[in-house]
Amino acid sequence: MLDTALATAIMKSVDAGFDAQVAMTAELVKFPSVRGAEHTAQDFMAAAMRERGLAVDRWRIDIDDIRHLPGFSPVHVSYDNAFNVVGTHRAGNAKGRSLILNGHIDVVPVGPLDMWTTPPFEPLVEGGWLYGRGGGDMKAGVIACLAALDALKRAGYRPAADLHVQSVVEEECTGNGALACLQRGYRAEAVLIPEPLWNRLIRAQVGVLWFQVHVRGIPVHVRETSAGANAIEASYGIMQALHGLEERWNARRKDYPPFDTVEHPINLNVGRIAGGDWPSSVPAWCTFDVRVAIYPGQDIAEAKREIEAVIRDAASRNRFLANHPPDIVYHGFEAEGYVLKDAEAQVETLERAHRTAFGTDLKEVATTATTDARFFGLYAATPALVYGPNADSIHGFDERVELDSVRRCTQAMALFIAEWCGLERV
Amino acid sequence: MLDTALATAIMKSVDAGFDAQVAMTAELVKFPSVRGAEHTAQDFMAAAMRERGLAVDRWRIDIDDIRHLPGFSPVHVSYDNAFNVVGTHRAGNAKGRSLILNGHIDVVPVGPLDMWTTPPFEPLVEGGWLYGRGGGDMKAGVIACLAALDALKRAGYRPAADLHVQSVVEEECTGNGALACLQRGYRAEAVLIPEPLWNRLIRAQVGVLWFQVHVRGIPVHVRETSAGANAIEASYGIMQALHGLEERWNARRKDYPPFDTVEHPINLNVGRIAGGDWPSSVPAWCTFDVRVAIYPGQDIAEAKREIEAVIRDAASRNRFLANHPPDIVYHGFEAEGYVLKDAEAQVETLERAHRTAFGTDLKEVATTATTDARFFGLYAATPALVYGPNADSIHGFDERVELDSVRRCTQAMALFIAEWCGLERV
Repeated sequence: MLDTALATAIMKSVDAGFDAQVAMTAELVKFPSVRGAEHTAQDFMAAAMRERGLAVDRWRIDIDDIRHLPGFSPVHVSYDNAFNVVGTHRAGNAKGRSLILNGHIDVVPVGPLDMWTTPPFEPLVEGGWLYGRGGGDMKAGVIACLAALDALKRAGYRPAADLHVQSVVEEECTGNGALACLQRGYRAEAVLIPEPLWNRLIRAQVGVLWFQVHVRGIPVHVRETSAGANAIEASYGIMQALHGLEERWNARRKDYPPFDTVEHPINLNVGRIAGGDWPSSVPAWCTFDVRVAIYPGQDIAEAKREIEAVIRDAASRNRFLANHPPDIVYHGFEAEGYVLKDAEAQVETLERAHRTAFGTDLKEVATTATTDARFFGLYAATPALVYGPNADSIHGFDERVELDSVRRCTQAMALFIAEWCGLERV
Repeated sequence: MLDTALATAIMKSVDAGFDAQVAMTAELVKFPSVRGAEHTAQDFMAAAMRERGLAVDRWRIDIDDIRHLPGFSPVHVSYDNAFNVVGTHRAGNAKGRSLILNGHIDVVPVGPLDMWTTPPFEPLVEGGWLYGRGGGDMKAGVIACLAALDALKRAGYRPAADLHVQSVVEEECTGNGALACLQRGYRAEAVLIPEPLWNRLIRAQVGVLWFQVHVRGIPVHVRETSAGANAIEASYGIMQALHGLEERWNARRKDYPPFDTVEHPINLNVGRIAGGDWPSSVPAWCTFDVRVAIYPGQDIAEAKREIEAVIRDAASRNRFLANHPPDIVYHGFEAEGYVLKDAEAQVETLERAHRTAFGTDLKEVATTATTDARFFGLYAATPALVYGPNADSIHGFDERVELDSVRRCTQAMALFIAEWCGLERV
């Protein structure tokens, strides 16, 4: 337990630095760090860590280093610009408990620009919110890691334990960035990931699978459409069958607490489609991308077999596809679900920090999304707390993060560091 | 009526040149003259016409020249490389009737290369067929125009009337190439278009409309799919409604002879689709391209109103789309249907030529596709005969054209020229 005077000093120090923190968050939002283009934002992070006296480790992810590890997800894009950055504070006399602060630098695509009120990579502060792609998910959190350390320093302290700030890529598609940090040897006694969690703590998260369905058709001139098999329209039958699987999996939720209390834990999304080449040719191909959740403990290999059986069955009911079954390509997330456990000390510390910063009890949530927490929890026996600010429209248009929530979460993070790692005078 | 000896001499002359004709057709198939890249094939055609002593007119289509004309179709691509080529034989003493031989140089996209047995632009002659994209539709016909003239010349003759060989672009998407020929002033007393018609004559052809449907959704993180409107899946509801319109239009076929005897004259094809950006984001947009036929005499503006009403109605039944109705963009064919009439002399001449070449009566067909014939028939009061060789899989994979059919059709074309234009000694 921190004493009240110290806690107050730390919180005030966060407030004192908050304008600079917001400015730095906005600066980071300007980097269009969509997949394949994270490197310049990572250069910015490396420089920011170096300025703060952290020892910087920046490396390109090598798939050969990680492909054999549990939690690896298949990847079909280049990692030429996929750099992780870790900044480490090494305590001279480590009295406290070590900590990893982890955040992801990658953001999802912006979609049609005309659906944004203001340009996605031109951050705008208005009405107490910061707007921009990635502001919520999760550049506010990434900067909050550094701002919490800045606040401690401003108050005259530094952590009395080793602490790693990790800025990773690939969270939105594979998690291979966080996995590469594990492979490189980073370990600690707790992990905190400030994802936009509406000031709550994740108690459980689903797993996620990505797959692509490649449907073929018989191409003919449109004057004889009945002789062809329209790959675009045939795809719809497969989507419907997959939604049937989604409902069957949702019906199993009683077997997977805490998701038994979540109304619709398993969401299946057809997120991308492309097919055909010419309006007057019956389309001979259609490819669509699917994201589907799985429960913690649900076996990935078995889930894939169920998916494949559903697609095969739907295809068998289509005259053409019966003899030309679709190809299924796994091209991203093969993420297990994760339930936070054996984490009493970590959670209690966060509960105290949250209560001090917000004046309310910390709420927990079982989220229907995944986070990088699973790597630490499942493959390194380290409880990972996912806790962060209030955001709107992540993955949507006019994404925004609430600044007062960022401020209080940063206070809570600083208090958490102070109690978990202990402090020593600068 | 040609005398038998002359007819025999002409047909033998076609045979004598046929190996060269096949080689030249193969040469033309090598040019990947998909939309936007027709120019190099047109350079080849211009050179071939020049070698034959035709006066060559090669010009780039200027949309401003034609946009006000009946039959114009809207266009959203660049015409930077959209050149027409016309080669003209002017008779010293025009005793016969003038003629336009018209063919299109543009080919439809090839689609996935792995669905071709051999590369689409590497022509292959095997088992009496020439394989390759555009071989049937309609480079065999384009070259047949020149080969028919070559055959007459080899036999010692040339047409005793003005004759234009037109190689046009844009037949597969707008018809603006043929329209530009009309605008430039080309006229004649008959037109022959050697499209791959399975050795038959088109008596009637449908019209065609192209349109694009732009569907928007509400993008959210996939963890809350029920809060978003999936633009990809919403698109299928609109497609289904459009198929309802297709069936209602087919039910009206008794009002549109000769299509009253065609089983399914109106085909609606969803030929291309693209939507979404990321598997884990509910897709906020989906655009699909549709081709639909209309009857000869069916009003285009009224047909568009019916299409728009169907889309509006389908959208109104979707919670999100009701307030965000899709945009409809016309981006190609606005083609009227056409019935060949007032063409007794032209048809009788072709019937005789066909009977002489094939030994069988000429069959007629009401086709569920469109051709450039409509421009000459509807907007220049000139009957246009569409008649040509046997082809397979046009718009599909392993497109091919039957060489013996090409040979006989070329004979029929040469005989048609000889009788229609008359001949004079070279």
